Amino acid sequence: MAVYTDITDTELEDFLAGYDIGEALVFKGIAEGVENSNFLLETSQGRFFLTVYERRVKADDLPFFLGLMLWLAEHGFPSARPIADRGGRLLGSLRGKPAAITEFMQGLSVRRPDAALCREAGGGTAWLHLAGQGYPNHRANDLGVSAWRGLAERLVDEAEALKPGLSRTVAADLDAIERAWPTGLPGGVIHADLFPDNVFFVNGRFTAAIDFYFACDDLFAYDLGVGLNAWCFEPDGTFNVTSGRAFVAGYEQRRPLSAEERAALPVLAWGAAMRFFLTRLADWRATPDGALVRPKDPLEYERKLAVHRAAQAGGGLVLFGGEA
Amino acid sequence: MAVYTDITDTELEDFLAGYDIGEALVFKGIAEGVENSNFLLETSQGRFFLTVYERRVKADDLPFFLGLMLWLAEHGFPSARPIADRGGRLLGSLRGKPAAITEFMQGLSVRRPDAALCREAGGGTAWLHLAGQGYPNHRANDLGVSAWRGLAERLVDEAEALKPGLSRTVAADLDAIERAWPTGLPGGVIHADLFPDNVFFVNGRFTAAIDFYFACDDLFAYDLGVGLNAWCFEPDGTFNVTSGRAFVAGYEQRRPLSAEERAALPVLAWGAAMRFFLTRLADWRATPDGALVRPKDPLEYERKLAVHRAAQAGGGLVLFGGEA
Repeated sequence: MAVYTDITDTELEDFLAGYDIGEALVFKGIAEGVENSNFLLETSQGRFFLTVYERRVKADDLPFFLGLMLWLAEHGFPSARPIADRGGRLLGSLRGKPAAITEFMQGLSVRRPDAALCREAGGGTAWLHLAGQGYPNHRANDLGVSAWRGLAERLVDEAEALKPGLSRTVAADLDAIERAWPTGLPGGVIHADLFPDNVFFVNGRFTAAIDFYFACDDLFAYDLGVGLNAWCFEPDGTFNVTSGRAFVAGYEQRRPLSAEERAALPVLAWGAAMRFFLTRLADWRATPDGALVRPKDPLEYERKLAVHRAAQAGGGLVLFGGEA
Repeated sequence: MAVYTDITDTELEDFLAGYDIGEALVFKGIAEGVENSNFLLETSQGRFFLTVYERRVKADDLPFFLGLMLWLAEHGFPSARPIADRGGRLLGSLRGKPAAITEFMQGLSVRRPDAALCREAGGGTAWLHLAGQGYPNHRANDLGVSAWRGLAERLVDEAEALKPGLSRTVAADLDAIERAWPTGLPGGVIHADLFPDNVFFVNGRFTAAIDFYFACDDLFAYDLGVGLNAWCFEPDGTFNVTSGRAFVAGYEQRRPLSAEERAALPVLAWGAAMRFFLTRLADWRATPDGALVRPKDPLEYERKLAVHRAAQAGGGLVLFGGEA
């Protein structure tokens, strides 16, 4: 929610000289995205989005992300198309930082999606998975299941500070998640962070996914687990079964799940909750008091872990079978 | 540079239901303006700017400001036209705060304007003064010459903390400014805060003035004094005579100054420097360490006061006579 890098009119002019998109008519810092500095850019040729990548995004990964956005756009998925400069490069440099110009996407993100929007978001997730097939570049999920144990061990003190006894509960969760983690399920490029603030709607239809800066190769159904956590919980911490079923049903309208994927979905969602619990806990610790951007509360995901733990004890989340 | 008030999609929907401008297709917080929360709003009918007024702007003054923006737009000046709701009201309410929708203005502000842009800005200032004539509402300048003595007396400790001996220098400046302050000069509605970040250009032409939240009735030439301070100083603190002359010449192309206005301009500019020095000093003091928005440095205007003091000793800034 902050513009970190301040770009002057002359810096912008110099940067745009490398592109064939006309001169700037509007240029405004946008309070969107926590990781990067984003600007609305309007030229005589249209509207664009300019992103300056701050240190949290690894520069080496940017060709993967920008290439993916282009690939998806070229394969019919509503992802902001990166604009190449006169030399055909998708990635430039502003103030010594990596920077890119992308298409401007219409639509609004929704704070509290209802079941109908969850269905749309599920459909969008499958659409992304299908459109991404064949993308020739690869990026391992460095925040995937194999990374969680190490993360958790480095965060024992922080977990205890959050809630006494929590580090043990987390370790036990990890034992169960690792034991139940599926193998052999279909995978490919996933978004890995498709939260409601990364999805735009117009008139209730999915019109864009943004912020591909965690995209990687992993199980498709794991992405669905991320989505169930992000879209289908109530503010009071309970899982909304109607929304969850709608999310999965929307997904299956575009990409039906195998029996193995369906069976694995509860534990994949539990693991996805672990991923966001651990990274939020790390961000929470790393942020000094009074910082410009307040990190997201790790307790939200501690409660989701508890929901998955309880559901698992009863056989897992019930996501199929009812009307949705 | 900050979005203070966070508006959800449902709050926006409810708010827009009161207007006849279609449904939102884009809604993004904009890092523009220090005093208010600003949003880019795009609907099926066009692009707009939504402003939520934070506590610093007096709610009672908003009808004056919005009425002025409308008056100016209707009299040919490029000011963002406020959009009336279905009941004909320019001012609404969002999250219990005053809020207004205005036209979206094209153009970019310029960080370091050259003499040609200073000429344009001077011309824009005169344009505003002429277009504002006949505006039926009035607002006294509560930060005008009669307010400075009281402000300075309340800020003695802060001035001394900034620079030992400064409070006496300021008091002596005030003696001289008050003694030399002109009477009988033409006046009307002025912008009173037309800094480079409140002016947009496209291809070197003045395309918009924004942020009318200090507008008031005062001497026209005082507004020119504000502009000379804001536009015509170098980063090293020296006055750029070429830019200053260009600013005044641009003004005079639209509204020639009388001999009395020309003669008074140096002291009016000195007084304008006093106004911004004092309010920046007050903001500086009032801002806790580590605050989200860092106030502007009062020392910049302390140096401008010194430039005017020295120029005055030599007969005042030389703004006429040379080529410009």
